[in-house]
Amino acid sequence: MKPLTKHKPPSPDTLDALVRIVGAEHAIRDEEAMAPYLVEWRDRYRGKAALVLKPGDTGEVSAILKCANANRTAIVPQGGNTGLVGGQIPFESGHEVLVLLERLNRVRDIDLATSTMTVEAGLPLAQAQHVAASAGRLFPLSLASEGSAQIGGVLATNAGGMAVLAYGSARELALGLEVVLPDGQVWDGLKSLRKDNSGYDLKDLIIGSEGTLGIITAAVLRLFPKIAERVTCMAGLNALETAPAFFARAVERASAALTAFEIMPRVGLEFVLRHGNLSRDPFPSPHPWYVLFELTSPREGAELAELAESLLSQGVETGEIADAVVASSLAQSAALWRLRELMSEVQKEEGGSIKHDVAVPVARVPEFVARANRLVELMIPGARPLPFGHLGDGNIHYNVSQPPGMERAVFLANWEALNAAVHEIVLDLGGSISAEHGIGRLKRDLMPHAKQPLELDMMRKIKAAFDPNFILNPGKLL
Amino acid sequence: MKPLTKHKPPSPDTLDALVRIVGAEHAIRDEEAMAPYLVEWRDRYRGKAALVLKPGDTGEVSAILKCANANRTAIVPQGGNTGLVGGQIPFESGHEVLVLLERLNRVRDIDLATSTMTVEAGLPLAQAQHVAASAGRLFPLSLASEGSAQIGGVLATNAGGMAVLAYGSARELALGLEVVLPDGQVWDGLKSLRKDNSGYDLKDLIIGSEGTLGIITAAVLRLFPKIAERVTCMAGLNALETAPAFFARAVERASAALTAFEIMPRVGLEFVLRHGNLSRDPFPSPHPWYVLFELTSPREGAELAELAESLLSQGVETGEIADAVVASSLAQSAALWRLRELMSEVQKEEGGSIKHDVAVPVARVPEFVARANRLVELMIPGARPLPFGHLGDGNIHYNVSQPPGMERAVFLANWEALNAAVHEIVLDLGGSISAEHGIGRLKRDLMPHAKQPLELDMMRKIKAAFDPNFILNPGKLL
Repeated sequence: MKPLTKHKPPSPDTLDALVRIVGAEHAIRDEEAMAPYLVEWRDRYRGKAALVLKPGDTGEVSAILKCANANRTAIVPQGGNTGLVGGQIPFESGHEVLVLLERLNRVRDIDLATSTMTVEAGLPLAQAQHVAASAGRLFPLSLASEGSAQIGGVLATNAGGMAVLAYGSARELALGLEVVLPDGQVWDGLKSLRKDNSGYDLKDLIIGSEGTLGIITAAVLRLFPKIAERVTCMAGLNALETAPAFFARAVERASAALTAFEIMPRVGLEFVLRHGNLSRDPFPSPHPWYVLFELTSPREGAELAELAESLLSQGVETGEIADAVVASSLAQSAALWRLRELMSEVQKEEGGSIKHDVAVPVARVPEFVARANRLVELMIPGARPLPFGHLGDGNIHYNVSQPPGMERAVFLANWEALNAAVHEIVLDLGGSISAEHGIGRLKRDLMPHAKQPLELDMMRKIKAAFDPNFILNPGKLL
Repeated sequence: MKPLTKHKPPSPDTLDALVRIVGAEHAIRDEEAMAPYLVEWRDRYRGKAALVLKPGDTGEVSAILKCANANRTAIVPQGGNTGLVGGQIPFESGHEVLVLLERLNRVRDIDLATSTMTVEAGLPLAQAQHVAASAGRLFPLSLASEGSAQIGGVLATNAGGMAVLAYGSARELALGLEVVLPDGQVWDGLKSLRKDNSGYDLKDLIIGSEGTLGIITAAVLRLFPKIAERVTCMAGLNALETAPAFFARAVERASAALTAFEIMPRVGLEFVLRHGNLSRDPFPSPHPWYVLFELTSPREGAELAELAESLLSQGVETGEIADAVVASSLAQSAALWRLRELMSEVQKEEGGSIKHDVAVPVARVPEFVARANRLVELMIPGARPLPFGHLGDGNIHYNVSQPPGMERAVFLANWEALNAAVHEIVLDLGGSISAEHGIGRLKRDLMPHAKQPLELDMMRKIKAAFDPNFILNPGKLL
């Protein structure tokens, strides 16, 4: 699929004009100073830029895009540079200009009666959570990278995370946006309305468009009641096949109180026990699969522990689960969560890992994992599949660690072939090749395979309508 | 704003070709037989059609649009004909062809583990609710017109209703769509994924586009646990000003268990008491405002009654509410809801009524009502404002009944002027001129006033990209 692009290398005059917009102290032209912004944090991509700009407000972002559009200069917006698919890194040409949103980091408004806050794109996610908590509310979006990830990037990529089950992805957490369009016009869509049926849903079109349709400069975010009571539980399962039924039971019994439902395979727990400092197995004997789930309530006295005990008893009775533990203290709860949170990083200790971020309908997760595991065994005998993640959303991080002793590079040479074969299964099961990380650069070339031609056609028509000169993040997503 | 249209009167050959697609027994050419489909149910619009077609499956809808697109024939899709803004009624030219979805009414699939059902566009909403209930689940969307309204229309207009507070509008309840595009291509977007970050959000663009971008033929809908416990409460308030604080308290205490939060003014209750058979005032003395709210839980033993009592006590202590009743039986609960449900129809008994379906941020509802009431008193002294609706969503049905004794037609002559003035206040408060009914024909001419030029420009570009011949529901919404 040919990228939509017709940008030119920026002339010295254009670069000077761009620098003047933000002021020399907020522009970086020195290669060394630019470097940290030009490398993806897992070092999968290293790009070049003609210039790095740090605009100080929406007006400056607007002026930058107006100038870039007039001069056919490509612009790459970047938030906290925590993206996992390379969407935030310029290509190697050195013809693109990187725009950082970090100086747009104000909290513009908090409205407790409407339960919203209006914040700028450069505010780090963890700070947004903190602002909400200081006001006695919860902003539930939570990611491993929340210390660095910024609200603008989180919305541009429709980030997911741990709390999607109860609160939805980033898209569902934003009621309104302020967006600078590719020609520099500013769309003030900062509505704080739960209901607005006045025309096409432009907000949701921009969210998840990965900086290809406009640059988000501010957003109205939804706030929720703070959590007063929390129960964390872990269950051992004899087989993944019973997990969807136990999940359905948990939803039925706990409904909105069920705020997380994660799965982990035994091999993942073993990696954590081997490499995660101080982690210990919560169960006396091993189980092939584990479920980690959490019940929360904004009010005390919700008797979540009783609910959890009853749910777990039912699960054992029906054979959906084999054994269970309930955290009886904050420390125990944190220890259980640590098992899950370490699941990504401990894989490094076991050599190379080939990764997938996919979703299938919840009911089909066991079928997906069984088929993908068979495939791995056929393609790379001895490789160790480590499928884990958000079962409640059908979102599985299907990771595969190398066979012990194999050379890392030899194993990793299978990356694209394994991706292709796993994605084929995902698509056959009605799934998505990117559940929460987006498409960016990493999966762009998979789009013609993963999407119907008319879906791509619709997306490309929308891109052309919004950004006819293709200056915004060209070659990403589409 | 000039409508986007370039359709032609259909030739006899085109009409014959269209009839052949569905078969003569599913086409109506007789004016009398067409009549019921050509009048809006409140008789605000009466249109004409060259032909009415009842396709039997997605393939026939596709063939109709392919033919219509090739011949520049305008197509108006219609569901249950319950829309409130005339979007489903053809214009008076008689050049348009009406397409009814009623024969696409199958339930294609129910997936309990994934908590979804796949149904066709013509299935009435009440039947969809029934299908879910028969499977032990809840499909929460609920509207006054649910017996006739069809899933396709409900999604095309992003319908709201009583349960938006807890479950969201139609958009949030659909995970995937099957859509016939204006050129007849069928988009199979029937995903049942909670998370899918693979490109632009086409689903949400189609939902709420009022049949101007494509015809929805099927959808994957989310299911929720059935409700096991329910408590209905009504509170009397001394002033509307305290309602947002009491709402915030209710959210804080009950969170997702708060599934409805409605307001009604005293005059509305008086109308109901006067004209609603058997209705009686639940309170010993009158209050200027009332709140009707409901707590629900999917599990028994959630102690909602205790929660409600405690919440109401706090409300009385803080002065947010003056008095309260808790329904202690299903019959009492139904009687309280009847007060709210009759609020629309009893207005007819009091003469003419000028209506608005608007939303403002929750915190600004009292300010909106105060300003609008002052305006009404200035413009039409003696007229009786009856603002009621979904306070929890900021969605107020700002209705105004005529002054007693005034001639109905004289009062109604103020419709457009009052609309314009009320909408001005709504927009000043960051609100929407259509919270849940949509734009259709009724509010199309208000769009240039209500939207920023660049919003309209983006919408018109999207329309042109999807439907370059402007054959789908021309002159509606845009």
